[in-house]
This record gives sequence, structure tokens and C-alpha cells, in this order.
Amino acid sequence: MLNETNYTMLLDYYELTMSNGYFLSGKSEEIAYFDVFFRKIPDGGGFAIAAGLEQIINYIKNLKFTKEDIAFLKGKGIFDDKFLEYLANFKFTGDIWAVPEGTPIFPGEPILTVRGKSCETQLIETFILLTINHQSLIATKANRIVRAAEGRPIMEFGARRAQGIDGAINGARAAFIGGCASTSCTISDRRFGVPAAGTMAHSWVQMFDSEYDAFVAYCKTYPHGATLLIDTYDIFGSGIKNAIKAFKEVLVPQGINDFGVRIDSGDIAYITKKLRRILNEEGLPQCKIVVSNSLDERIIADLIKQGAEIDSFGVGERLITSKSEPVFGGVYKLVATEREGTVIPKIKISENPEKITNPGFKKLYRIFDKETGKAQADLITLRDETIDTSAPLEIFDPQNTWKRKTFESYELREMLQPIFEGGKLVYQMPTAKESKEYCLSQVESLWDEVKRFENPHTYYVDLSEKLWDLKHELLRFNRKSK
Amino acid sequence: MLNETNYTMLLDYYELTMSNGYFLSGKSEEIAYFDVFFRKIPDGGGFAIAAGLEQIINYIKNLKFTKEDIAFLKGKGIFDDKFLEYLANFKFTGDIWAVPEGTPIFPGEPILTVRGKSCETQLIETFILLTINHQSLIATKANRIVRAAEGRPIMEFGARRAQGIDGAINGARAAFIGGCASTSCTISDRRFGVPAAGTMAHSWVQMFDSEYDAFVAYCKTYPHGATLLIDTYDIFGSGIKNAIKAFKEVLVPQGINDFGVRIDSGDIAYITKKLRRILNEEGLPQCKIVVSNSLDERIIADLIKQGAEIDSFGVGERLITSKSEPVFGGVYKLVATEREGTVIPKIKISENPEKITNPGFKKLYRIFDKETGKAQADLITLRDETIDTSAPLEIFDPQNTWKRKTFESYELREMLQPIFEGGKLVYQMPTAKESKEYCLSQVESLWDEVKRFENPHTYYVDLSEKLWDLKHELLRFNRKSK
Repeated sequence: MLNETNYTMLLDYYELTMSNGYFLSGKSEEIAYFDVFFRKIPDGGGFAIAAGLEQIINYIKNLKFTKEDIAFLKGKGIFDDKFLEYLANFKFTGDIWAVPEGTPIFPGEPILTVRGKSCETQLIETFILLTINHQSLIATKANRIVRAAEGRPIMEFGARRAQGIDGAINGARAAFIGGCASTSCTISDRRFGVPAAGTMAHSWVQMFDSEYDAFVAYCKTYPHGATLLIDTYDIFGSGIKNAIKAFKEVLVPQGINDFGVRIDSGDIAYITKKLRRILNEEGLPQCKIVVSNSLDERIIADLIKQGAEIDSFGVGERLITSKSEPVFGGVYKLVATEREGTVIPKIKISENPEKITNPGFKKLYRIFDKETGKAQADLITLRDETIDTSAPLEIFDPQNTWKRKTFESYELREMLQPIFEGGKLVYQMPTAKESKEYCLSQVESLWDEVKRFENPHTYYVDLSEKLWDLKHELLRFNRKSK
Repeated sequence: MLNETNYTMLLDYYELTMSNGYFLSGKSEEIAYFDVFFRKIPDGGGFAIAAGLEQIINYIKNLKFTKEDIAFLKGKGIFDDKFLEYLANFKFTGDIWAVPEGTPIFPGEPILTVRGKSCETQLIETFILLTINHQSLIATKANRIVRAAEGRPIMEFGARRAQGIDGAINGARAAFIGGCASTSCTISDRRFGVPAAGTMAHSWVQMFDSEYDAFVAYCKTYPHGATLLIDTYDIFGSGIKNAIKAFKEVLVPQGINDFGVRIDSGDIAYITKKLRRILNEEGLPQCKIVVSNSLDERIIADLIKQGAEIDSFGVGERLITSKSEPVFGGVYKLVATEREGTVIPKIKISENPEKITNPGFKKLYRIFDKETGKAQADLITLRDETIDTSAPLEIFDPQNTWKRKTFESYELREMLQPIFEGGKLVYQMPTAKESKEYCLSQVESLWDEVKRFENPHTYYVDLSEKLWDLKHELLRFNRKSK
């Protein structure tokens, strides 16, 4: 595989200091359970999209501290020799469950759970978090932009403004899973099959003695799919005239009709309407209009509302960095330990109720309405609970427990899939294209009220009675005894 | 080298379609000149910090399309066989000049110039831009945060919230160049010598039967530099009490004094003042107070103003993503071509005056005041111009040409250093630590008016008379003839 690089040393230093400490405190064989969850949906949206699992799987498979890594750590002078020996033979032997890539996800619910020996679970924290946080951020943003475009293709154009190499490469992948049609980033096509697209920059036009020469040369080189960039000098003064001339002289006589023009500046609504009129008057209604220039979901929705004549959008920096909200706040929290086969639930308390964790080893269900197929709510239970799906299902709001709802005709889907069991990969990873299709079908299963951009309906993520009781018992216990 | 991965295929697809087109249009041997410059300083600051050159150098040295890459491109069905053969033997044979990493930079000035055969210059565009854009963004943000902290160390903590692997690894590097003291990201220490730091997460505290047990175990494992996280359950109810007890029982009797407490939640100003009082009353004035939790330069400045008792700051997501402004808008623009040894200046025009490029092959000078050593202005000239430094130097504002200033006692520094000559590396790359020291000394050379956060003074970047004349001649010519 092209992307199976060893990133074992990409970890927060405190994962090493803690692991060495567990080792020396006789806690390295103790089993720990960690949940990944997030607290806030970016951009005030109604849901996020999970992404990044493939990179986590590759990372886990390739875990290996090299001799040089061990020598480097030894040089720090704080790690025990036995611990370094342990690291030299380190591998992940635990279990991981996760929601598939492309799944709509909601605050507070576990989207990935790790069970394993304390050091193993601790040492993989940083990579898991950064991967989920990055790719879920971009998939979520891409899905917003795709929905705003109402069926018009979104080309992801952002590599040059991405936050680093991987921001571009895996960013393009996540954007595709979220619904983008293509990317500018060639390596993401090569690695993940995200279709690469693009035609010319202003430099192409400048390299020729005239704009017209540049356009003719391009149409001759690429008679199919030629999209001419017409704003190097003056869109209406020269750009569109030279483009029309090139199309009519080179392409139309050959019966070729898949060409277009692109603009990357100016007042897009005004310009595209005028361009459409000119192109139609010139007998070129087939000529597509592509636009780019600092677009995002709000600008796209606004352009469509204003009647801009646009066939597809190129979206760059505001997608690839999720500019309006560039952080996805996924966290990795200890929820239980295990001694001699007994699971001991753990809690982290905070003055801020949203920061209090849901303790224990858990399951996540999505409740679908049997008739409409729509997702109604998510339910978190303890792992050993069972739900009698032949009976009605009552759920309640964990903050306002008097708010209750009963489902009569429903289907449950268990959302966390087994990924690793005893260190062995047990999951058949879908392709990026399959994850994209899954994503779009799952977004389709959400009510429009959850999908709207402004003040979306809050989708319920409820706790089972047993989990709620456990949480409140631990809250009471930890506040008084510590 | 650890970081010499081959990223040749990390390029926008249009670089390939254009290059194939240059090849087929007989333009592949034509020489092109490209400038990298940026238009807007993030966060309304007075300057940015350049970073990323080391990664660009490694990339250029490792350029290589593999057989599999070529086969992949062949499968696209649009690239000429001779072009693919050319790619199979591709390397960079041109010249690159750049400002050293850590240099304060200003809008509109060339910070990197590439001269080479058209295809070569085109194919490296994406990687150069994404690297400079990412690392300059983070170095700039880091420098702001470091200045806000007024001498208190900043620990970069953001790996888990970075936009991808490289966002974390090279982000930590850029943050260090901008002035951070350390990073949480271990691999950045291993690769670049950015000191890694960190002690414990909440999970450490939760793994033990009690908070006190967790603190004692930590102090015993790491008697030096132990920083205990005291907000897992209740800062004043248990955290600080258990920490003081552990320090007094384990460390103080050994005469150890380099310990501290960390909080990651709550009202930092209120809590740290109260903690300082408690620690002093308990006879532990040596105990350091470390804080984290969504900090940035504005919050840090505010905390200091409120008299918060803080010894050092851990800064995460808002630094590693430059959250308040996550895009650095560097561009790569064709400024000249060359035929038979003659440089032909090129311009890109826009309705927006800031988007009009400065044509030609150029030099960048920084003008220093001889007495104070302070940077007074930057001056862009054509490459073949010489400045008589024995005479006074008059510069003028390129927008308001009547605004003129004359320097009598000045020194000029040429800012663009030769990096590659004829494809050969001619630059001795400084270490990240040297770049950091250079950065801090160069920021010191700026007037305080340029450094302030609110409405900083606009530092002048002027054009020589010859360059100004050339630009306006090309503007007139291209607006009428195209």
C-alpha cells in the first residue's frame, strides 16, 4: 500500500510518560476502555460525518518503534529500560469498534471504542484523535457544501492552501466521502480513487503570446472537457470573446460539445448570468460555466438563490481547512478499566455538564422508523444490555428526564462495528467511493429538520435507564469521596 | 533522513495537463519565472513569519515519478507518451531563491522565486505553496502567541487537533520556529529537535483507585518536572489538596523543587490566583502553575492583564490550526518568461488592484536604519538594477506615488537567498533551533508599531522606479490589446 507509512512516533509525549508510569506501577497489563466522542457540531450544523478509519487501520497495522526511535527515547533519560524493551516489541493486541466512515454522527456518542492493555490504549490516542478530528472535520464541511450546491458537482480544489501534505491528501479523501465529485490533488486519485480534475491556471494563458493562442492550444491538446480560464486579463473585454472564438474554430466543427469556461474572480452572480446570455446568443448553450474563488456553503447557497448560472463549483481553502470552523473537537476518554474480568466504569467530572463523560463499556444504536426509514434518535446502552425489539421502546432525554418518547414501529441498527479483535483486523474496509455512497444514503435517512443550516433540530442521543443510573451514581460517589 | 518521503504526485492535476500542453506546444524548454507572495497578513497582524523551506528542499531533492505513477497517468488516456517518458526522467534543473525560514515577511513581496523550464516550474507549484502556506501560517500564529505571553514559555499541545499527520509534525516545527518552547509531538522532537514535553492526561488520574494514589505514583516515577493535572474531579475540593500532599510526601523531603500543577478547565484567572495563594500559604511558592484549554494570543494577553498567576501556557487547537484565521493565502504567479536569454516580463491583471502581480525577475531588499538596526521598509527592484548605497535612497508608495521618503544612514540586506542553482542545492539549511533564533532576532528588528496586535502600522513594501514603470506599461498594454 502506498500510504502505509510508520507513524508510531507521532504521539504526544505524555502518552509515553504515562505508559512508562503504568509499566512501573504494575498497571501495564490492566485493561482500559477508551471512547472517542465529540462535543460540538462544526458550523452550528445538525450532524457531523465520521471519517478517517482507513488511516487508523493502516496505522495500527504498521505500529513499530524502530531501533532509532528506542535509542532516541533512551536518550531522554527518563524511561525504564524494561519499558523501552517493551516498546521495541510493541504491537496492538486489543479490540477496536468504530462507526463506518461516512456515518452521520452526533455529540456525546461513542464513535470509536478501544479496549486493550493500558499502555497500548494510551500510546495510540494521539494518532486516532488527529485522524478522526481531521477527516471528520473535512467530510462534515464537504457534505454541507455539497448539500448547498443542490446537485451541482463540487470539485475540491484546496491542496495549495491545505494545512500540510496530509491536509491535502487525506483532506481530498474526506471531502470525497462527504460528497465532493472530484479533487485537484493527483495523489489522492492514485491512492484512493478520488477522481482528479483540473484544466489550467492563469500561468497557461500568460505563457502564450496572446490569450487566444493559449485557448486554441488548449482546445487542440484537450479537445474533450476543455475548461478555459477567462479572467486572466478582462473577462468581457477579451476572455469570453477569445474562448468563444476558440470553441467555434477548434471544437464545434468536430462536433465536440463538452467544453466550458471558468472564472476565478469578480461578482460571480452578475458575471455568470451575463456569460450565460452571451454564450446562448452565440449558439453555445452547451458551454458549461465553472466558478471558483473563496466559496463555501453560504456563498454557494446565496449564489443559487440569486439565480447565478453555474454548472459546477471549484471549492478551495474554505473546504480543505474548514475555514469557518477549523477544529473538530473529538476527545479520547477513559470510560472503564477491567480487573480479573470485571469491568470497572470510570468517569471524568467537570463543572461543565457537557464535559462529563458517559462511563462504562457501551453500545450505540440508531433507531429507524420502520415506515419512512428515517433515523429517529440514537441510544447508548451498556454493553451487556439487550433490547427487546418486539416491544415498544421508550427513551428519555438525559438532561430533562421527564421528556420521554416511545417508538412502536422501529428498527435498531448497532452502529459500532468490530474493527480489530485481539489485535487482528476483522473489518473489510470499504473503498472511498463506497464510503461516499454510504454517506449520501445515510444523510438521506435524516429528517430535513436535522439537515437545515440555520437552527437545525437537535437530534436526540439518549442513554438507557441503566447507563443513566450508573452515570449518576458515579457522579455522586466521585464528588464526595475524592 | 526521516522525512525524505517522495511527494512528487502531490500536485494539482492541472499542473500535469498544462505541462503536457507545454510539451506538445513546443514550450517545455521555454524558461519561466514564478514568484511566491501573499496578500494578507493573518489576524490583522503587522507581519507574517516565513517557514517551510526545509521541507521544500527535501521535496525537490526527492522528486521522482515512479513507474507506478507513470502507469497511473498513462491510464488517464490524455497524456502524450513522450511527455510520460519525460516525467519518468523528471528532475528539477532550475534555480530557486527564498527568504530564510523565520524571516518576517510582508504582503506583495516575493518570498520565493523559481526560474526553470516551464514544466519543471509548473509541476512543483502545489507542493511549494502548500508547504509555505501551512508552515508560515503556524509560525506566524505561534509568534503572536509567544509575544502575548511576555516571556512565559508556550508549549505547543495541538497534535490531536491538527489537520492531519503533517499538520501535527510540521506544525510543531513551524510553531517552534515562531518561538514556542516545546511541543507535545514526539516525532517532531525526533525529526527536528523541537523539545518534546508533557506529563499526564486525565486518564492517568482515572486509572488509579484515587487521585492521591495517581499523584504519588507519578511523583515517584518522575521526581523531576512532575506537573500534576488537578482538575479530573474537583480542583479545590480534591485536586490541589492531593497534589500538595503528594509533593510534600514524595518530593519536598528529597529537596526537589521543580514540580507544578496544571489545570485544563474553568475560569483560569480566578483559579490560578487562588491556587497561587494556597500554594504559597502551604510553603510551596516554587510550585509552578501551568494552564491550558482553548488558549490563543487574545486570551493569554487578557489573562496576564487580569493578573492571573501563570508560569507557562499549553496551547493546542487554536495554535496548531491557527483557528481564528486558518488559511495563509500565498500564491505562485508567473512573472516572466525567457526566450534566447531575454527576460519577457508577464503580468496578471485583476479588477482588484491587490491581485495585480509585480512583473519581471526581481530582487527584494530590506532597508535597516544604521543607528537603531531597525527595519524601515522593504524595496523590490528588477534583478539587474543596482543601488548605490553610498548615496541617499529615496523610496515611494506604489499606490500614492507622491508619498516619498529618503534614507540617509541605512544598510541594505538582500532577502532572497540562492537555494538551488541549476538544480543543485547551494544552501546550507539551518536547524529548526537556528531558524527560531533568527526569527526572534528579526522580529526584534521591527518597530513596536509594526508588532502591536491592534491596528499595527503598515510596513512599507515599495517598488523601484524602474519596476513601477514596467508594471504600468504592461498594465496599459494588456488592457488594450488582448
